[in-house]
Amino acid sequence: MQQRTNELRALVESYLAELALTPELGTLEPAVRHALGGKRIRPVLCLATGDAIGARVENLLPAAAAVELVHSFSLVHDDLPALDDDRERRGTTSVWAQYGEATAILAGDALLAEAIRLALIYPTAAVARELIHATLAMIGGQQMDLEGGAPLDQLHALKTGALLSASVMCGLWAADVPLSEHAPWRAFAGELGLLFQIVDDVLDGDGYALEVGEDGARRLAEEAAERAHARLADIDADTSVLDEIVGELAVRTA
Amino acid sequence: MQQRTNELRALVESYLAELALTPELGTLEPAVRHALGGKRIRPVLCLATGDAIGARVENLLPAAAAVELVHSFSLVHDDLPALDDDRERRGTTSVWAQYGEATAILAGDALLAEAIRLALIYPTAAVARELIHATLAMIGGQQMDLEGGAPLDQLHALKTGALLSASVMCGLWAADVPLSEHAPWRAFAGELGLLFQIVDDVLDGDGYALEVGEDGARRLAEEAAERAHARLADIDADTSVLDEIVGELAVRTA
Repeated sequence: MQQRTNELRALVESYLAELALTPELGTLEPAVRHALGGKRIRPVLCLATGDAIGARVENLLPAAAAVELVHSFSLVHDDLPALDDDRERRGTTSVWAQYGEATAILAGDALLAEAIRLALIYPTAAVARELIHATLAMIGGQQMDLEGGAPLDQLHALKTGALLSASVMCGLWAADVPLSEHAPWRAFAGELGLLFQIVDDVLDGDGYALEVGEDGARRLAEEAAERAHARLADIDADTSVLDEIVGELAVRTA
Repeated sequence: MQQRTNELRALVESYLAELALTPELGTLEPAVRHALGGKRIRPVLCLATGDAIGARVENLLPAAAAVELVHSFSLVHDDLPALDDDRERRGTTSVWAQYGEATAILAGDALLAEAIRLALIYPTAAVARELIHATLAMIGGQQMDLEGGAPLDQLHALKTGALLSASVMCGLWAADVPLSEHAPWRAFAGELGLLFQIVDDVLDGDGYALEVGEDGARRLAEEAAERAHARLADIDADTSVLDEIVGELAVRTA
């Protein structure tokens, strides 16, 4: 099982490594590629969703990459001096620290636009629609964070949960699963987003961890994981790899 | 004729004024709306294209607004201190000067994402595809400008021409004109983009105006306008309003 997750991650890595950027982006390419590191949680979720229903995962790679590029776009802009002012990201320099603010702003824009281009490779516009709604939620969440004072669960649902959920839903749309079968998947995706954001808080020592303590937050994460497993059990598909991913997300330490 | 252009512009203005933003954007709304001023050249072109082929222009409003929002997105990010450092825009404060850099970065992101959302209102993904390709060209052009040393015609084709052309092409896609009828329109859109960028240079005193002098640039603009009229004459549609817009763009002073 872990083996299948690793296979899916390897597919994502090689797709991203070989991804031809739009030629007009020209000298933005190094900055865009610099931004594309990470654990690939979202694209693997997208592929694992397709895998569960027997879709050909290769066909889901553009959707999976699109979700990852939206995630990268948000990090590149969030790291900017005017926002979080982070010079480091994933053990190396952030894009602005490496390439300057102007190029980082444009590289973030390029990542978002490339993500949409990839989501629009499908005949259906539904993949792109799902992704753009999550993106808008994320941008709104970032503004909410900037202003301060918002309820944490609402803030994190926008900043983190929306794109996590979209990872699953984009996999369904890309695999042409009809809307009539989406409901249990959307319920699962919602629990998964919540699980992810609670564990994020535990790891960052903020949000839920501040509100209910680290042990309390860990318990909330376990409960969300149980609900996610229960939602998966409602779905008529081989969800074993997704169950495993849920288990890993619940105990992740980075 | 001028009356029809004014009617189309009024339609755009009221659509934009009443446009409901994605609720999750929350307090970004004033900054996003602040960015939405302008002469509406692009959305009027989009509607006039639909008008020429007898489409119901109301159905083209989301596409027209999408093009305008991409234009606004680019201005909001270009005005930032790290890029052009402009505190003024259209006789008032630029978004960052009014709302701060962080909110301006997010408002630009939101404008791009909202533009895509609007382009995705159509059953076909083609409107969004056309728009995202122009957006990628524009972002690449901005990076090229940042680096300096690029040939001016190439630079301006990316920074200005691509979105002008997309204004026409998005109108065609939104009106469901089959691809087999696009060729003469695309030829027209290309000449129009070139015309627009030459006149931009005359007004800004750079680019073509520096290269061939103001009078020389004005002559190039007239030639591009003549070619644009000739391309319109090739098209089996009532292009009288578009002919008028070409005439206005060739002699515009702002």
